[in-house]
Amino acid sequence: MSCAPGSVDRRSYHGRMRTRDRIIDAAEQAIREFGITGATTRRIARQAGCSEALIYKHFSGKEELFLAVLLERLPALGPALARLRLATGQGDLAANLTEFALKALEFYARAAGIASGVLADPSLLDGFRSMLAKADMGPHLPIQALAGILRDEQRGGRLDGGLDPDAAAAMLMGACFHRANLSYFVELPQEDKPWAAAVVGTIVRC
Amino acid sequence: MSCAPGSVDRRSYHGRMRTRDRIIDAAEQAIREFGITGATTRRIARQAGCSEALIYKHFSGKEELFLAVLLERLPALGPALARLRLATGQGDLAANLTEFALKALEFYARAAGIASGVLADPSLLDGFRSMLAKADMGPHLPIQALAGILRDEQRGGRLDGGLDPDAAAAMLMGACFHRANLSYFVELPQEDKPWAAAVVGTIVRC
Repeated sequence: MSCAPGSVDRRSYHGRMRTRDRIIDAAEQAIREFGITGATTRRIARQAGCSEALIYKHFSGKEELFLAVLLERLPALGPALARLRLATGQGDLAANLTEFALKALEFYARAAGIASGVLADPSLLDGFRSMLAKADMGPHLPIQALAGILRDEQRGGRLDGGLDPDAAAAMLMGACFHRANLSYFVELPQEDKPWAAAVVGTIVRC
Repeated sequence: MSCAPGSVDRRSYHGRMRTRDRIIDAAEQAIREFGITGATTRRIARQAGCSEALIYKHFSGKEELFLAVLLERLPALGPALARLRLATGQGDLAANLTEFALKALEFYARAAGIASGVLADPSLLDGFRSMLAKADMGPHLPIQALAGILRDEQRGGRLDGGLDPDAAAAMLMGACFHRANLSYFVELPQEDKPWAAAVVGTIVRC
């Protein structure tokens, strides 16, 4: 049985996935420890217990590897947006948005190391930018998704009709992104939860 | 005359300032060209036409040099905040805030290379964080300054009394900071000016 082609394929697929996972884990740890510049493929390979060549068999380059860390290892915004969408028209809108803002803060704080590392390295940024454009992805999409949800809440009468949902979404996500970055530089005076509630209150006030 | 002590002091002061300026210019150029990680003191010294030792005579370290680039070479937020403060109670508030938001966008876009480079380098970040704490400075202060201005406009009756000035300031600055960062990763669909007006409209809507 174990020699049947299907079984072999499955086994090698799982083997590939295990190696890929090990490389992503190693990359995440290297970034945390040494910053993105210090996260060399040599260090990542040593940590993952594989050769540098094997890294390039799984990933076209550092850009793709770092994107995999972002998408597959960090607390994602996707599930938080999905939860918010599911709750449209239900529960307390301010409370739902505050919970979402706290998730966004957490995501941006953990993603900051990679995002800033990419931005600070002109050649890595070039590669990342082309990759995002080709895949039709990008860090602006969560703003658009949030704007869609706010638009629906507005249609349902739970948000002021005069509010611009795109602008409100840009402000809510922007405030979270900024705060997550600030927290690396200075001790912030206010706790996250009352801060998030106040920020959401600016949108849900009317 | 030129040998009088005062004159000598003045000359050497100017000489020191010229060298310091040359080093800051060289650092700014190196960051733009090679990213903050590639902006080594060796490269900066070569570009400035001085020795690496001379850099350390003017700056305690890379942290202080990069802070000098931020404070002395980039279009600063300070003058934009001062203009906004001067205009308190005068002119069209939404127009004043939109003009300020455009200046903030410009500042954050130019500061992104340094800010992200510092954030991405654990040891540089450590040094930067202590330096800011000691000098009682930090990237959160412009938010507080903007909040103060919004509070005064609110007292003057030009902003909804129910608005939380701190939250509104965090959102306006955050939206600008986020957009400035996003613009490095993706092509943004909307022009800056209508975007800024819409964001400001979220605050000035009532």
